[in-house]
Amino acid sequence: MTDESADPALPATSRPVVLVSNRGPVSFSRNDDGELVARRGSGGLVSGLTPIMANTGATWVAAALTDADRAAADAGVIDAAGFRVATVAIDPGLFTMAYDVVCNATLWFVHHGLFESARRPVFDGRFTQAWEAYVAVNDAFADAVAEVAPPDAVVLVQDYHLCLVGQRLRHIRPDIDSVHFSHTPFTGPDGLRMLPDAVATQLLEGMAAHTACGFHTPRWARRFTQCCDEVLGVTPTTFVAPLGPDAADLSSIAATPATVAAAADLDAVVGDRKLLVRVDRIELSKNLLRGFRAFDQLLGDHPQWRQRVVFGAFVYPSREGLPEYLAYRQEVEGMVAAINNRWATPGWTPILADFTDDHPRSVAALTRYDVLLVNPVRDGLNLVAKEGPLLNKRDGVLVLSTESGAAEEFSDTALLVNPFDVAATADALHRALSMDAAERAAHASGVVEVARANTPGTWLAAQLAAAGG
Amino acid sequence: MTDESADPALPATSRPVVLVSNRGPVSFSRNDDGELVARRGSGGLVSGLTPIMANTGATWVAAALTDADRAAADAGVIDAAGFRVATVAIDPGLFTMAYDVVCNATLWFVHHGLFESARRPVFDGRFTQAWEAYVAVNDAFADAVAEVAPPDAVVLVQDYHLCLVGQRLRHIRPDIDSVHFSHTPFTGPDGLRMLPDAVATQLLEGMAAHTACGFHTPRWARRFTQCCDEVLGVTPTTFVAPLGPDAADLSSIAATPATVAAAADLDAVVGDRKLLVRVDRIELSKNLLRGFRAFDQLLGDHPQWRQRVVFGAFVYPSREGLPEYLAYRQEVEGMVAAINNRWATPGWTPILADFTDDHPRSVAALTRYDVLLVNPVRDGLNLVAKEGPLLNKRDGVLVLSTESGAAEEFSDTALLVNPFDVAATADALHRALSMDAAERAAHASGVVEVARANTPGTWLAAQLAAAGG
Repeated sequence: MTDESADPALPATSRPVVLVSNRGPVSFSRNDDGELVARRGSGGLVSGLTPIMANTGATWVAAALTDADRAAADAGVIDAAGFRVATVAIDPGLFTMAYDVVCNATLWFVHHGLFESARRPVFDGRFTQAWEAYVAVNDAFADAVAEVAPPDAVVLVQDYHLCLVGQRLRHIRPDIDSVHFSHTPFTGPDGLRMLPDAVATQLLEGMAAHTACGFHTPRWARRFTQCCDEVLGVTPTTFVAPLGPDAADLSSIAATPATVAAAADLDAVVGDRKLLVRVDRIELSKNLLRGFRAFDQLLGDHPQWRQRVVFGAFVYPSREGLPEYLAYRQEVEGMVAAINNRWATPGWTPILADFTDDHPRSVAALTRYDVLLVNPVRDGLNLVAKEGPLLNKRDGVLVLSTESGAAEEFSDTALLVNPFDVAATADALHRALSMDAAERAAHASGVVEVARANTPGTWLAAQLAAAGG
Repeated sequence: MTDESADPALPATSRPVVLVSNRGPVSFSRNDDGELVARRGSGGLVSGLTPIMANTGATWVAAALTDADRAAADAGVIDAAGFRVATVAIDPGLFTMAYDVVCNATLWFVHHGLFESARRPVFDGRFTQAWEAYVAVNDAFADAVAEVAPPDAVVLVQDYHLCLVGQRLRHIRPDIDSVHFSHTPFTGPDGLRMLPDAVATQLLEGMAAHTACGFHTPRWARRFTQCCDEVLGVTPTTFVAPLGPDAADLSSIAATPATVAAAADLDAVVGDRKLLVRVDRIELSKNLLRGFRAFDQLLGDHPQWRQRVVFGAFVYPSREGLPEYLAYRQEVEGMVAAINNRWATPGWTPILADFTDDHPRSVAALTRYDVLLVNPVRDGLNLVAKEGPLLNKRDGVLVLSTESGAAEEFSDTALLVNPFDVAATADALHRALSMDAAERAAHASGVVEVARANTPGTWLAAQLAAAGG
């Protein structure tokens, strides 16, 4: 296990650290006696940062998402999960407009290039209100940070929910340095111009007001710079810091009884067939449909794989409050059924699609794959592409989208595919499935080395360095 | 009327000129005796270039689109419409794959940002074949040019159908200089990366092999340069040459009896109400739906315009062989019906939608508008935005999309709107309709000056200069 206090990647910073993100390290509920009880939060950011930042005196500012969270927020800064935790109480209606309308239904779509521009987006008075809510939420975060941040603190603001925090902080707490880190891709100038003009300008100005803006790859940093150049006429300060998994944390999850049991279940179903795996949210950007199309084409073009390979698709529901996501899930289910209908034989179901959010089962699948398909149409990084090689025990092959942020790191090692090119994806799957043991071993050692190269520690260190911490 | 031989914009070139485009200046049919008869072709390029280039000794190379065209192609170079005309006979199946699949259903969508990336495009074996057809068509054009071009000729290759012509020409006719001109927008690097990798590379290499590549605005030239930089690692030679209408040609069309009659019809329907006009193909990029939404919002927000304004939408079918276009037309028709249903009163139909391709009627509408709405989600230039001001007789107001290529020229004069922002579009329509006579006169004089600034002559001269002609 990693000993966080000794992480060699972390610089010895003399300045206090404040983490700022929508979801925090704890969420609150009430026990039977009506008392507030803190529980460890979930989400990649929390699980990545907790091992290295807990018990270092760091402060974490996050949104109060439930009534119990809001009650806890009234209590001010509390100690929980190894952090000084400050929760920001926000009117639920305001929060919903900012989170659902601006963040999930607009900024996410813009940065991932998901809009069908002939029809969407449509900006009307409702969006203007939602944008005002987004500004208000960001202001509330900035005010909370200003209140709890120790003197001369370094503030690390996370993701597209909170692009404007540093701008306000700069005015009210000039002793502070804040950086912003984007976990998503960043759109180019033509994509940004889809936003209402004032919104696009405010968004860029808000981000550029941070001491520096960080991204997972040079590509997204370049897009942000191009946007600032064309829209604002300024060159922002950027840095690149790819996140990597916590290998020790992954090992411990892989060793849990639930994961071991899930792996045994999978063994029983797959038997001596090859196992192709994907692990994804059911998310428009993840490109589930073309992944299944490619598998369909593989079975059509290469009959030798019929009955010899199982596609384990561990995909779990997401954002089903947005009609686009429900419709997408239905299309995915329909396509899986059609392909299984086309190719299944007694004793062989080509696609095993699991639509439940079963983390041990997903981890088990990552230990067990022969080929891992990660084919997003666009992705900020894609941590599964790095978790897979670290967990895998069979010298499995990584087939990775050129449009994932991780592709730049894996460019010499993974089998890269254009995610829109179903024929090329089918070819890559065939090539991956056809590798002999020696090729697989060489491939696996290459991708494991890349997957290990960055950790939450190196990622955090880069943010601190960019902030002058 | 313009005397082409005296056009001051045209440089005195000492080199022979060859025009290359998909559609040529003439099309052929057979008369009752079975003899081939040439007729003037249609399309903006032909009507723009014919007045200035006819009878100058120029050669025009175009595709043979019909059986009669192919028969004419067998005859070699012929004299027609004031040009030496060479038609390129191409296998109809090959031509259809290149034109429908690659040009209209893929490159057009990529450059205009129209794909809904979660679902489209899907590149499969059929696309690979279609791309091979595109290459074959371009090769056939290059070979035809090589055969008919006089020594030391300057070759002007037009548009996204023919991106690869200059590359092949450079090998077989090194005495020739060729330029390529894009009438569409050019996508940025993220959009280009949607194409299969080899296709994206071949497309850029093919274009960059010309002596120079031309675009309607600095913005599209910059995008092309960014693509070449990121994908090829080379900096291409570009030039910017916005096309403008032929004012004399427009005047003569406005004076025809058909146009005069159409204007009288329109007068009778509109009466003393304000007239809002749009003239567009029914095309995904033209943004008809949000235009109607904005009009709907205008009527909702500003009751004073109810019964006081008529929206004449002169929109005509296009590419109905593609299911996307049929579906779009149905949505447009449904939205027009819903809005008329919501607001109509006895004697007032809010939207007069004319779905027929009636050029005199469109020209009449442009002479007669109080406000012209040109709101594409992306457009190479948009010539209607320039034709409107030149034809209009009522000091009409131009409301223009920031995403049209023409927006850069009109940035100080038109009312620019973000085409995705329906609320801002409704506001702009309100502002345009509310202008008093003095404001309208000042506005009109500004937009007319911009619309006059460039002509087919200046545009052609820029191409010749870029080619070293």
